[in-house]
Amino acid sequence: MTTKQDCDVLDQEDPLRELKLQFDLPVGTIYLDGNSLGVLPRATLGRVQEVIQKEWGQDLIKSWNSAGWIDLPGRIGDKIARLVGARPGELIVADSTSLNLYKVLSAALRIAKEDGPTRKLIVSERSNFPTDLYIAQSLAEQHGLRLHLVDGVDEIPAALNSELAVLMLTEVNYRTGYRHDMKTVTAAAHAAGALVIWDLAHSAGAVPVDLNGADADFAVGCGYKYLNGGPGAPAFVWAHPKHAERFWQPLSGWLGHAAPFQFTPDYQPAAGIKRYICGTPALLSLAALECGVDTVLAAEAIGGMAALRKKSIALTELFIELAESRCASLGVRLASPRDELQRGSQVCLSLDEPLHEAGYAVIQALIARGVIGDFRAGDPARLKDMPHILRFGFTPLYIGFADVYDAVEHLVQVLKNKEWQRPEFNEKGAVT
Amino acid sequence: MTTKQDCDVLDQEDPLRELKLQFDLPVGTIYLDGNSLGVLPRATLGRVQEVIQKEWGQDLIKSWNSAGWIDLPGRIGDKIARLVGARPGELIVADSTSLNLYKVLSAALRIAKEDGPTRKLIVSERSNFPTDLYIAQSLAEQHGLRLHLVDGVDEIPAALNSELAVLMLTEVNYRTGYRHDMKTVTAAAHAAGALVIWDLAHSAGAVPVDLNGADADFAVGCGYKYLNGGPGAPAFVWAHPKHAERFWQPLSGWLGHAAPFQFTPDYQPAAGIKRYICGTPALLSLAALECGVDTVLAAEAIGGMAALRKKSIALTELFIELAESRCASLGVRLASPRDELQRGSQVCLSLDEPLHEAGYAVIQALIARGVIGDFRAGDPARLKDMPHILRFGFTPLYIGFADVYDAVEHLVQVLKNKEWQRPEFNEKGAVT
Repeated sequence: MTTKQDCDVLDQEDPLRELKLQFDLPVGTIYLDGNSLGVLPRATLGRVQEVIQKEWGQDLIKSWNSAGWIDLPGRIGDKIARLVGARPGELIVADSTSLNLYKVLSAALRIAKEDGPTRKLIVSERSNFPTDLYIAQSLAEQHGLRLHLVDGVDEIPAALNSELAVLMLTEVNYRTGYRHDMKTVTAAAHAAGALVIWDLAHSAGAVPVDLNGADADFAVGCGYKYLNGGPGAPAFVWAHPKHAERFWQPLSGWLGHAAPFQFTPDYQPAAGIKRYICGTPALLSLAALECGVDTVLAAEAIGGMAALRKKSIALTELFIELAESRCASLGVRLASPRDELQRGSQVCLSLDEPLHEAGYAVIQALIARGVIGDFRAGDPARLKDMPHILRFGFTPLYIGFADVYDAVEHLVQVLKNKEWQRPEFNEKGAVT
Repeated sequence: MTTKQDCDVLDQEDPLRELKLQFDLPVGTIYLDGNSLGVLPRATLGRVQEVIQKEWGQDLIKSWNSAGWIDLPGRIGDKIARLVGARPGELIVADSTSLNLYKVLSAALRIAKEDGPTRKLIVSERSNFPTDLYIAQSLAEQHGLRLHLVDGVDEIPAALNSELAVLMLTEVNYRTGYRHDMKTVTAAAHAAGALVIWDLAHSAGAVPVDLNGADADFAVGCGYKYLNGGPGAPAFVWAHPKHAERFWQPLSGWLGHAAPFQFTPDYQPAAGIKRYICGTPALLSLAALECGVDTVLAAEAIGGMAALRKKSIALTELFIELAESRCASLGVRLASPRDELQRGSQVCLSLDEPLHEAGYAVIQALIARGVIGDFRAGDPARLKDMPHILRFGFTPLYIGFADVYDAVEHLVQVLKNKEWQRPEFNEKGAVT
């Protein structure tokens, strides 16, 4: 079994170890929730101060030109593009993931309608992140289509048929960490005549993505998870160049216009992906996002996303090894795919009976010890398929092997000492 | 004619003069562009630093609870509500003005369809801010409706007929500063069986607004103009309580769900206005917005919006008096309503021939002298009705009477010395 000393050696030999110095991590904390909210880069405060004091405070309105505010959505988009297999000018930062989903699903449905008017289905997974499903519900209702939710990955092939208009998947599942094979799934959907939208919320900055290589149709993603853009950071949106100019997207705001500062009454969409911008971007949050993206790009000189992925797999493999060898007898069970190819940068555990309902309290007890993971409730109607889970994200930029060892040690202590029984850990008032 | 000495006395006697101390204004600048981007409040930097360093950097994900992030859209919404005649819980901060327009116009069209399926028209003004028209174009196309644009306020009464579904107006016109009589126009539209949406982008924090008193149906507004929320600050949205719960709005993101952290696959809208939230808000920009709104609320102890309006009228009247008496012979003409009741907190000027085309260069020459206004091009096809304009916003929170005097003095010098003829002022590269 891997020892703490082994972990220290792994950390010393880690070619990515210097990347951690980019962050202000809270002392005494092992932060395994970067898949919910990434940590604070050291560069962010200074950059946001500069935007506030100089660009806004002193230069005011002229910063749209002099500080390049108007170009920020594209400039940051080009940086994110390098992480997800997109080319310069193909990807833009705008709004939230939910809103970008609305844009791309609207566009995909319109293409599907023109190319195959008999196709009446949108397919996704019941375990997809809810906002994806809520947006799909809204558009299905508006367009007289049906949203079909599959309960497992094995049901997807049967759903790829002549009725399918759009397949909408999150590449790495927010709950289980299950990772789809983007290229294979996309090809299968295309073979069935359907379009595919990929949500990269748990992919961008965590696993290598190759949107053009997979011939994907549309993609959206989140700025505040593995990209470390800060709470509620703006999201991003990509459209395959063959689709980008085919239609307006319906959220036709003034900054997506071909010439926004001519203030003409008729909408003329900007060329390419820029038409997916809508209103004025939240500049302070946008500036912070760029600092976060830069922390991931800093890995480019030492192996890039491939090196980050290699370390991510090593971290999650180690966590699984230690959790299973040390905690299986305490009622802990792996709830993420064991195959590293099918797993993102997170690992979920579930608790066997009689501990199953203690999951929330176990996470609270871990948090009290400085190990930050999170709890996601299962489906009460089908807990066997969708159990309560303890969710742990492993961000290779700032998590080390000794952190993984220590996290499991804390979990052992919480379970052995039954710390989760303390009343304060069982008060469910929290929102996250 | 009012002298500089008179202006100094007016400033000394101004009961609102202390409010200026809330801001870090750039030295040597007279900023008459707060109707485009409000200035930086002194409190903002410290507050955003706190959000970055403590709430994000140290407390990370738990700040959704401990720092009240989850409640911010409603908390700031309740503050803005006090400025626009809305009650607590009726108004929420979310997304951009463009996106909020999409939400409320979608809802209004759905109500109109149920209540009067033969109504096929959306009416607005051709001179409305373009994003309003672009969003209306998009929704008109989706719903098989027609967008009818009137060319002048006098054409509105004829448009209030049995075909009208929704009248969508910006209370204070972004170009001319023309201010509609919200209560009268709303009543007339209601008498015709139509709904009314008000865009308060140039109203909130600038003129007293009474949404409930006017019996308006929906409203949206901007956070980065008179509310001083910072570049691209989140916007706000209000729905009359009788409408708020009637439908989903189509941008049904997870944070508008009744129980977002239960992560259920079916969308159930939150009660009331909270369903108009969509995705995760841009927290840094949201925190800055609150500081901006607080600068306006600081006037509540010394007369509130009524006192701000009184000063705003005095400032714009003074500007008109001085500009007409000193610059009329130099080719300057008032392009905003002369009647103070029909005017927001801005004044526009146009230039007679042969100077008309020099408007852009005149603004650049004024900027070089430290007087920040902006230029808005006219409609080349009908310059008589819609001329090029020099646009000046007067924010009573931080503009004084001596500032107005000095601004006109600079305009006199620019015109007398023909400074606008300098080549550098004629290079049109700017975006704003």
